[in-house]
Amino acid sequence: MNYPNNIKKNNQKIVTYDNRGMDLENLINKTNEYYLDINRALIYKKPTPIGIVEGNYKKITNAYFKCPSTLDYNGIYKGKYIEFEAKETKCKTSFPLQNIHEHQIIHIRKVLEHNGICFIIISMNGLIYLLNGKDFLNYIDTTQRKSIEYNYIKTTGHLLRETYNGLNYLDIIDNIYEGELIWKIKKQLK
Amino acid sequence: MNYPNNIKKNNQKIVTYDNRGMDLENLINKTNEYYLDINRALIYKKPTPIGIVEGNYKKITNAYFKCPSTLDYNGIYKGKYIEFEAKETKCKTSFPLQNIHEHQIIHIRKVLEHNGICFIIISMNGLIYLLNGKDFLNYIDTTQRKSIEYNYIKTTGHLLRETYNGLNYLDIIDNIYEGELIWKIKKQLK
Repeated sequence: MNYPNNIKKNNQKIVTYDNRGMDLENLINKTNEYYLDINRALIYKKPTPIGIVEGNYKKITNAYFKCPSTLDYNGIYKGKYIEFEAKETKCKTSFPLQNIHEHQIIHIRKVLEHNGICFIIISMNGLIYLLNGKDFLNYIDTTQRKSIEYNYIKTTGHLLRETYNGLNYLDIIDNIYEGELIWKIKKQLK
Repeated sequence: MNYPNNIKKNNQKIVTYDNRGMDLENLINKTNEYYLDINRALIYKKPTPIGIVEGNYKKITNAYFKCPSTLDYNGIYKGKYIEFEAKETKCKTSFPLQNIHEHQIIHIRKVLEHNGICFIIISMNGLIYLLNGKDFLNYIDTTQRKSIEYNYIKTTGHLLRETYNGLNYLDIIDNIYEGELIWKIKKQLK
């Protein structure tokens, strides 16, 4: 590695682009490490995009956080592409849509169009939900509201369970895709 | 976006972690933009991982380049996960393996194990080759050499063509996977 020894590798103290999701982020990182350990999936957090103004290969002295146009996590599950975002909100009645940038919404649409697995993990009211990309877009496309009502997340989203190894989000993904498969087969049998 | 107006967004001048691949990088970025435009695939360059030592959400004043443990580009093609690395070498007779870190080799193995599409694009001797992940690992696993002989890349790799819209690497991927499919079917028919 090419960084000098005198640089401390601890970056916990600084205020990042979006540090509200920190606890949720740690939980998801732990989950992904577990999925990697048991060889169930390869899912990584993408590095935060940073624009560099000044520096050399040893030290960057002037840089800024860029606005991301894709989602936070991506990887591979059962050969398929998977990508998701994780957000925490303190708001109790709704999830403010300003948490998801316009570019990211376009990206979610594209990932689904290309048959990828795409969703948002939302932490609010002390609970963690998985909102499938399709359901997220359905809401956005049928309302003018600037936030997603908690009731919609509660009824359309999937409640995640926190275990010793993190969150059970891939079990939920299995359920969603099995459900869709059964629905397709039933439709063909009719 | 949260960066101040007085920061120049031009980062072309600095020496990055690995700037040898810059021309190739631009060519691949152009290719990926084209694939995105024609809606053939969604493939992005991952941001370079950076460790932050000092700074706030507006400005980073002390940071360093981290060693990547995954590959440079990833995304989705025909619903499948795709990931690859791009490297340029001035060496004429062989591709030095120090260009690919140990963590990245482990990662290539894992991506293939999870049925992802994985390869390395190598620019050398004025030509650009696609070396399939499986062929890359076969070489590494059967030799003690610290570089891949050019002859192996020439005969086992696939020569890429540069067009107005960039490289034709997805055509090569189509050929490889169609070839493997035909091979599997023939084997079953025997």
